[in-house]
Amino acid sequence: MALRAALRGLLSCSSHGRLCASSTSFSQRNNSSSANLKVDHDQTTGVAVMHMQSPPVNSLSLDFLTEICITLEKLEMDKGCRGLIITSSQPKVFSAGLDILEMYGKSPERCGEFWKAVQEMWLKLYGSNMVTIAAINGSSPAGGCLMSMTCDYRIMADNPRYSIGLNETMLGIVAPFWFKETMVNTVGHRNTEISLELGLLYKPAEALNIGLVDQLVPEDQVLSAATQTMTKWLAIPEHARQITKSMMRKSTIEKLRSNREADIQNFVNFITKESIQKSLRMYMEMLKQKKA
Amino acid sequence: MALRAALRGLLSCSSHGRLCASSTSFSQRNNSSSANLKVDHDQTTGVAVMHMQSPPVNSLSLDFLTEICITLEKLEMDKGCRGLIITSSQPKVFSAGLDILEMYGKSPERCGEFWKAVQEMWLKLYGSNMVTIAAINGSSPAGGCLMSMTCDYRIMADNPRYSIGLNETMLGIVAPFWFKETMVNTVGHRNTEISLELGLLYKPAEALNIGLVDQLVPEDQVLSAATQTMTKWLAIPEHARQITKSMMRKSTIEKLRSNREADIQNFVNFITKESIQKSLRMYMEMLKQKKA
Amino acid sequence: MALRAALRGLLSCSSHGRLCASSTSFSQRNNSSSANLKVDHDQTTGVAVMHMQSPPVNSLSLDFLTEICITLEKLEMDKGCRGLIITSSQPKVFSAGLDILEMYGKSPERCGEFWKAVQEMWLKLYGSNMVTIAAINGSSPAGGCLMSMTCDYRIMADNPRYSIGLNETMLGIVAPFWFKETMVNTVGHRNTEISLELGLLYKPAEALNIGLVDQLVPEDQVLSAATQTMTKWLAIPEHARQITKSMMRKSTIEKLRSNREADIQNFVNFITKESIQKSLRMYMEMLKQKKA
Repeated sequence: MALRAALRGLLSCSSHGRLCASSTSFSQRNNSSSANLKVDHDQTTGVAVMHMQSPPVNSLSLDFLTEICITLEKLEMDKGCRGLIITSSQPKVFSAGLDILEMYGKSPERCGEFWKAVQEMWLKLYGSNMVTIAAINGSSPAGGCLMSMTCDYRIMADNPRYSIGLNETMLGIVAPFWFKETMVNTVGHRNTEISLELGLLYKPAEALNIGLVDQLVPEDQVLSAATQTMTKWLAIPEHARQITKSMMRKSTIEKLRSNREADIQNFVNFITKESIQKSLRMYMEMLKQKKA
Repeated sequence: MALRAALRGLLSCSSHGRLCASSTSFSQRNNSSSANLKVDHDQTTGVAVMHMQSPPVNSLSLDFLTEICITLEKLEMDKGCRGLIITSSQPKVFSAGLDILEMYGKSPERCGEFWKAVQEMWLKLYGSNMVTIAAINGSSPAGGCLMSMTCDYRIMADNPRYSIGLNETMLGIVAPFWFKETMVNTVGHRNTEISLELGLLYKPAEALNIGLVDQLVPEDQVLSAATQTMTKWLAIPEHARQITKSMMRKSTIEKLRSNREADIQNFVNFITKESIQKSLRMYMEMLKQKKA
Repeated sequence: MALRAALRGLLSCSSHGRLCASSTSFSQRNNSSSANLKVDHDQTTGVAVMHMQSPPVNSLSLDFLTEICITLEKLEMDKGCRGLIITSSQPKVFSAGLDILEMYGKSPERCGEFWKAVQEMWLKLYGSNMVTIAAINGSSPAGGCLMSMTCDYRIMADNPRYSIGLNETMLGIVAPFWFKETMVNTVGHRNTEISLELGLLYKPAEALNIGLVDQLVPEDQVLSAATQTMTKWLAIPEHARQITKSMMRKSTIEKLRSNREADIQNFVNFITKESIQKSLRMYMEMLKQKKA
């Protein structure tokens, strides 16, 4: 049922790939746009809003991940940017997660390169010195959920058609240890265990209940609520907040940092297995049939 | 009060030691029975139901533990068995836990052999590749609670006369670190701390509230609810589920596996102490008086 | 807002520094009094009540910490003392936490001495063999919250004007790893993360909700509720309870014990920084203005 719900969510999105990216630029704003990201950086408030606009469902391909990482790097280095809100310009979806096409029928080298980019995004987001808020205005399975969990705070649209969760197991693949630890740090060990074993996707109300998101608001208020919350967070003494955040997360970050190469090998060995490739093929065929 | 409740539960059981083990056998079933275990293995569904029927209260003696371990080993090796439901054929009790008679007045060697069997059962259950569901149709103190916690999912009879918990402290003994870690993984650190320090037994509603069990159902529906849940779990891609389960539990399992001998020594030294033997004697006398 | 609430709480206290320490002495009581502590030790029940009476707000100065440590040491050694209740004789405040005056404009040596006393108090309380109950009859920010969290059980006055939490970040300083771990052990990782990053102070109802306190009672019943709870805890087999408590806490305790010197250096280097001293000065000026 979780699977069907996930498919429904994803497919309903891919039918219309239009962008809502009408960017309003004021003089004090420093807006950069790449193909799939629109960044509104308000220099007055020190807050950047990163709109993901990679049609149809913000799947995290190698290219898109690379764009995201470059943008994060720039914002992190920019002293004028103290807060980051991540949201989606695509209708009904925040991000559909890792792009399956990057894992199917690819060479081990390419798979490794892809995985390194996934690691890089996680390291940049989970370890960011900025205040990071996920404005989850649509479904957020797998890698989309991971991105959300790296943030300091999660606000989700209160629409029961959306869902969020690490549902990798339903695709026959396995969330790596650092996905797992990010989730344990968010919702505890038992919720993570049952969630990952069953590949659960949670409706917004359920997600709030287990602490997977922090707040639900009506769909049209997700971004404004994120902006309001950001103001509160930016009022906190910055240096102390940053050291505290680092203290809470450094052991998890350190574990991946000191095992990146092994983690890549692990992923490549697993994903290139005949049986896993077959699982992914079946999953994609199911997606196509749903679409037709 | 917890103690009195536990005694009441246990004693009310031991007064009638009859078995409800009327086994219905169909051609597609592979039913094995040993003295104290009845296993219904449905080859069609791949689900085995293990009925504990060691009168009066399914106390985990060395013999009974050995039977359980042999049965678990067989089922684990059997490719046709993918799911295991553990339940009780004894009225009003799931399992009363470790058999006190195995800890009282026994030689250190015998105590060590007993403890090794407890470890073995835990290792087999907590690390099982099968989907394991506890159908808790009666009280489940101490070792009974441990067995339940090793499972992937816990369904308990919604009868306020039943209780569940690691109440070792009330007997003057101490839950070892791997009991503790299993509980921390289930209900978190603080619930475990207060629970173990006070030797708490929880009513079903309280157990549900802290996450010690996952679901309450009317008493006569425990097994059918477990069967329904099992169907959902078996629909999950198996290999990914197994790897995920192992990822969640392996650090806890590894900690015992690499410390078995020391853990046995620890237990034997503790349990054979004069003061602890006296505690156990007093506890047993209290049980007898209650009975009379 | 949290900050303002904290200030309001603290300032309203400092305006009247009177003591409520009218000690009633019976023959079976062994009451010791130092300048800022009144200890009622009931030899019959084995319970000592430690009243903090350091005006105006029980700030933990080096002198006061030293008094507390000496008292704890004595009680711990006294076989006749099995339970300790910690409460406040000051109106509206349990303890305002670490004394800022000990961190402002002091030599590195003095800062180090101060921090060593903070460590010592935590080590003594978190590792105590006694049953420890915090009778939180007023606001309990920062170090006051830490003291509360070291106890086995926390009962708070159900008065929405009081609050509790580790709000160090709001002062521009950082809770060290052992404050953090004590909180994670109490309310879990995510609650701790958001709580420490924002320097949150919780109203009693919120504190109960996240598990930061265990029970709320009307303000005039805090001490009697603590006494009742103590009776239940003292009925638990003592040796087993102590070993269990130690098992739950020893890894956290060990981490500080084996890093005391580095932790002191860390604190001294941080607190003597120009920028941190400036933060503290601004905070104290804000306190003064509020007062005036």
